[in-house]
Amino acid sequence: MKVIELNASVTESNDRDADAIRKEMKEKGTLLINLMSSPGSGKTTLLSRTITDLKDQLSIGVMEADIASDVDAVKIERLGAASIQAHTDGMCHMDAGMTKRALDSIGYEDKDLIFLENVGNLICPAEFDTGAGLKVMILSVPEGDDKPLKYPLMFEQSDALVITKMDTLEYFDFSLDKCAERASRLNPSIQIFPLSAKTGAGMSIFEEWLKEQVSAWKGEKSDTIFRD
Amino acid sequence: MKVIELNASVTESNDRDADAIRKEMKEKGTLLINLMSSPGSGKTTLLSRTITDLKDQLSIGVMEADIASDVDAVKIERLGAASIQAHTDGMCHMDAGMTKRALDSIGYEDKDLIFLENVGNLICPAEFDTGAGLKVMILSVPEGDDKPLKYPLMFEQSDALVITKMDTLEYFDFSLDKCAERASRLNPSIQIFPLSAKTGAGMSIFEEWLKEQVSAWKGEKSDTIFRD
Repeated sequence: MKVIELNASVTESNDRDADAIRKEMKEKGTLLINLMSSPGSGKTTLLSRTITDLKDQLSIGVMEADIASDVDAVKIERLGAASIQAHTDGMCHMDAGMTKRALDSIGYEDKDLIFLENVGNLICPAEFDTGAGLKVMILSVPEGDDKPLKYPLMFEQSDALVITKMDTLEYFDFSLDKCAERASRLNPSIQIFPLSAKTGAGMSIFEEWLKEQVSAWKGEKSDTIFRD
Repeated sequence: MKVIELNASVTESNDRDADAIRKEMKEKGTLLINLMSSPGSGKTTLLSRTITDLKDQLSIGVMEADIASDVDAVKIERLGAASIQAHTDGMCHMDAGMTKRALDSIGYEDKDLIFLENVGNLICPAEFDTGAGLKVMILSVPEGDDKPLKYPLMFEQSDALVITKMDTLEYFDFSLDKCAERASRLNPSIQIFPLSAKTGAGMSIFEEWLKEQVSAWKGEKSDTIFRD
């Protein structure tokens, strides 16, 4: 498992670089998903379960972006998925140039799906296009149903909202209806997946959606692209 | 309850501005605490309980800093404390200049203690001195005990670590010992307060510490400065 040290891209043209990444990933048929959330929302647990469930059907890679440590990348590698750890030199988000260097490091030509586990933060990652084909955000039940009110840009920007730790719903003052309504008001097309990566409840619906997205990205029917 | 719109300070000299704020707050005998955490860690719930418990002993103000919304400031105002909402114009942290404008808006000469509830984020707020006399960070049990490994600067910078939602310990894989050991390794003098603002367990120890800090800031013995 590699650890790479990144720093902010010198180029001013982040959006142009991001478009170039998206174009290349489209040509190679590799879907890059930018996964964003607060610290401790359960990104790594969600990815671990997803990889375990889908690794015989899709070739998956994970790029972990953090200020420090490699605890997440080590966990992912133990599951048998390709994994690299990127350190962001104190930066609170990944930009397109940093993402490109991470993609070059992990190698993407042989992969169907790569997750960029962005730095844990609901603000800065929403502001920088990384070149991903899809943006998925995670909100965990303990964080509260008022987060769409406080961090609207993240909800506006995301294609899907995964609500994790649903098994803890009874211990927290969290209304799924209120949260979904607030998110949908900001972004009427957002897909919402309430689930528990711990118990597995709701995982299969999210995983079916992921497979459909990979299929759509490759421009093929889903029954032709999965390996088994 | 006021809402003020802030944007980043034009000055390059954030540290000098922060020192000037600290000096003035010391002269007025008002302790400013920079309260930092992830989104959804329970900052507002902790403050609500603290205000309810201490409002007859200390004059307390709260400055809520958020990208958007005023839900927290409205909650605090209902408790009868002075409260303002600062909007950070998309910025992921407060700097010294922004803090000064917020202080001027809430008024601080008549207060013993002002909390700056910083933007929810474990990265950027740790990098900017706001002029606060103390830095307190919150980590909630559901976020996990590995956070000191991933966000070391925040733990290094904080005078105290409040571990919230301790009433949910049995539902999460969180070791208080491991978390405390990791935090103390980064910052041997950090004070750690495990508590539940929901049940009240551990609150009185934290509140006693707060009162001691106000007393020390004013340079007086604690039995002379509290109003009752």
